Amino acid sequence: MKAGVLFGTYDVQVRDVPDPVLLAPTDAIVKITYSCICGSDLWFYRGLSPFEEGRRTGHELLGVVEEVGADVKKIKKGDTVVAPFSWFDGTCPACQNGITSVCWNGGSWGFGDTDGGQGEITRVPFADASLFLVPPGTDEKLMPALLTLSDVMCTGYHAAVSAGVKKSSIVAVIGDGAVGLCAVLASKRLGAERIFLFSQKEARQNVGRQFGATDIIAERGEEGVANVKRMTDNIGVEAVLECVGTQHSWDMALGLCRAGGRVGYVGVPHDVMLDITRMFRQNIGVVGGVAPVGAYISGLMPDVLSGKLDPSPVFDLALPLSELAKGYEAMDKREAIKVLIRP
Amino acid sequence: MKAGVLFGTYDVQVRDVPDPVLLAPTDAIVKITYSCICGSDLWFYRGLSPFEEGRRTGHELLGVVEEVGADVKKIKKGDTVVAPFSWFDGTCPACQNGITSVCWNGGSWGFGDTDGGQGEITRVPFADASLFLVPPGTDEKLMPALLTLSDVMCTGYHAAVSAGVKKSSIVAVIGDGAVGLCAVLASKRLGAERIFLFSQKEARQNVGRQFGATDIIAERGEEGVANVKRMTDNIGVEAVLECVGTQHSWDMALGLCRAGGRVGYVGVPHDVMLDITRMFRQNIGVVGGVAPVGAYISGLMPDVLSGKLDPSPVFDLALPLSELAKGYEAMDKREAIKVLIRP
Repeated sequence: MKAGVLFGTYDVQVRDVPDPVLLAPTDAIVKITYSCICGSDLWFYRGLSPFEEGRRTGHELLGVVEEVGADVKKIKKGDTVVAPFSWFDGTCPACQNGITSVCWNGGSWGFGDTDGGQGEITRVPFADASLFLVPPGTDEKLMPALLTLSDVMCTGYHAAVSAGVKKSSIVAVIGDGAVGLCAVLASKRLGAERIFLFSQKEARQNVGRQFGATDIIAERGEEGVANVKRMTDNIGVEAVLECVGTQHSWDMALGLCRAGGRVGYVGVPHDVMLDITRMFRQNIGVVGGVAPVGAYISGLMPDVLSGKLDPSPVFDLALPLSELAKGYEAMDKREAIKVLIRP
Repeated sequence: MKAGVLFGTYDVQVRDVPDPVLLAPTDAIVKITYSCICGSDLWFYRGLSPFEEGRRTGHELLGVVEEVGADVKKIKKGDTVVAPFSWFDGTCPACQNGITSVCWNGGSWGFGDTDGGQGEITRVPFADASLFLVPPGTDEKLMPALLTLSDVMCTGYHAAVSAGVKKSSIVAVIGDGAVGLCAVLASKRLGAERIFLFSQKEARQNVGRQFGATDIIAERGEEGVANVKRMTDNIGVEAVLECVGTQHSWDMALGLCRAGGRVGYVGVPHDVMLDITRMFRQNIGVVGGVAPVGAYISGLMPDVLSGKLDPSPVFDLALPLSELAKGYEAMDKREAIKVLIRP
C-alpha cells in the first residue's frame, strides 16, 4: 500500500510500504477513506520535534473495516469508523477515568509497529475501544465533519471543557489553526456569550466568525492582551483556550485571565515553563492536556450527524494522498487551515 | 498600643506603636482578642521573602469592634468579628466573582498604613465587607477555632475545593503545617474516602489522623511519591493539595497525580517553575492561589459554631503577645504547629 513517510525536515513523501496485517486478536485492519494533516504534524515536519527518519505520518483517520481479529466483538467488517488520534484499550485505570489519551496500553499512530493515518490502510489496536461506528447510510458529505472528531473538534472541545466554559462565559481563544477554530465552535456550543479569537488571517477570521467568535483580535502579544483587557473593562476573561503551546502564547494566556479564571490548554507545549507565582497571585487555574478524544466522540457525533455541529469548514483544501507533500507545504506556509487527504 | 514589629531576620519584637485611628468612613477600629502566627510569617522572619525593616507582623485576627466610620452599616461597636488575612471592598469585579483575595482595592495587614494582626488594636478598611460577625453569646472556647477561619482553615479548604475533592475522592496532602492539616480536615468534610498526609513529626501526624488522614507517609520526595503510587496500584491520586510552595513539593505534587488529576495549590510559591509538558502528557490541572477567605467564612462558620468542624487542634502553643518572639522561635524550629497569641 501507499503511505506518507517523513524522511527529513520538510521532506514528506508517499511511498510503497508493506500492507498491515492483524498482529493481535483485538486488532482490526481499516481501509482509510478520509485523512488529513494536523498542526501537530508540522512540529515534526519543521524539525522542531525529534523524529526517526522514515516515520509514518498522520494520526487522523476515518475508514471502512476490512478485517477484524478473533476477539473483536463490537466492530465488524464493512463498518465505517472514525478513530481517535491515539488508540487505547478502554479498560486500564486511565481509560476508566475517562483519560483515554493516557491509556496504560495505548499508543499513537506512526510510532512502533502501527501505521500512520496518512496512508491507504492501517492496523488498529484494541479496535473495540479505539474505533467509533459511523451509522450505516450516513451521507458521504458528512464524512469530513466526522473526521474532525478524530482530533481537532474533540481537542478544541477539551480546551473549552477544561477551562469550564459554560452558559454566558466570556472566552478568549489563542490559536487560529483548526484546533483553535474548533475551540471557538465548542465554546459556542457550551453557551459562551462572548468569544475573542486572536487571528490575523482573513480566511481564518471568517471561519472563526462562522463558528461563533464575536470579536476578532488582530494584534498579538502584549498589545492583543491589552486590547481584550480594555474591551472587558480591565477585567480579562474567565476562560482562555490555549491552542498553540509556545511560551509566547502562554504569556498571553496568563495575561488574559481574570482573577479566578482558568486556562484550558491543549496546544502541544514546546519548552514552556509556567511561573506559578503569577498564577498564585491571580488565582489562575490551568487545566487540560492531550485530549482524551475517545471520551468525547460518542457525545459529539449525534450533533455532527444531525448537522447541528459542523466543524468541516476547517478543511479549506482537499488533496489526493499522492499530493501529500503539497498539503504539508500549504499548511506550513499557512496558506491552508487544514488539508483533507483522500487516498 | 503594643504590636509585633519585624526589625530583621529572626528579629521580631513587641513595641509601642501609635494607636490606629479611623482614616476612611468605611474603616473600623478593632481591639484584637485572639491572633496567631502563620507559616507564611516565617518566610519574612527567615529572610526568605523581602520585607521593609519595621514592618508590622501578623494577618490573622479576631476581636471586638471599638469604633466604626460613618459609612459602616452592618458592623457596629461591640460586635465580635473575625477578619480574613486580606481586606477587600466586596464590590470590585474580582470580589463579585468571589475572588476576594484579588480585590482591586484590597490589601494585606501590615503593609502601607494598616496595622498587622499581631498587636492590640488594628484599623480595618472596608469593615462591612472585611469583617465577619461572630454571633453574640458565642462560647469563648470556640474563639480559637473561629480564628482559624481568618486564614488556615479557609486556605486548606480552598486547596481541597480547587482540586475538586468530593465524595469518595482519593487525596494526598503535601505540607503538615496548619494549612496542610486543615486541608486534611477540609477533604474529610467534602467526603474524601482516603487521605494521604506527608508528615514526619508525631505531633502533626496525630492531628492529621484526628482530622481524617487515613495514611501517614513519613518518606519525602521520590520515595514518598513511590510509596503512595504503590499503595494506589500505581495509579496515583485524583487530588493533590499543595500546601508548601517549593519546587520540591511541586515535583512531588505532579508525581502523585493520576492521569486527569488535579493539584489544588495554596502554598505561597517561592521560585517554582512548572513544566507544562509533564502536566500535558498526564492531563494534570493545577488550580488554586491566594485563598479568597472572604468567600468561604460564611459557609464554614455555622459548622464551627456547632462544633461539627473543629480546626482548633492546630494550635498547640498559646502565648501572650509579650512573648511573641518565643512563638516565632517555636514555629521556626517546628516545635509548635501554630501559636495562638493573646494580647
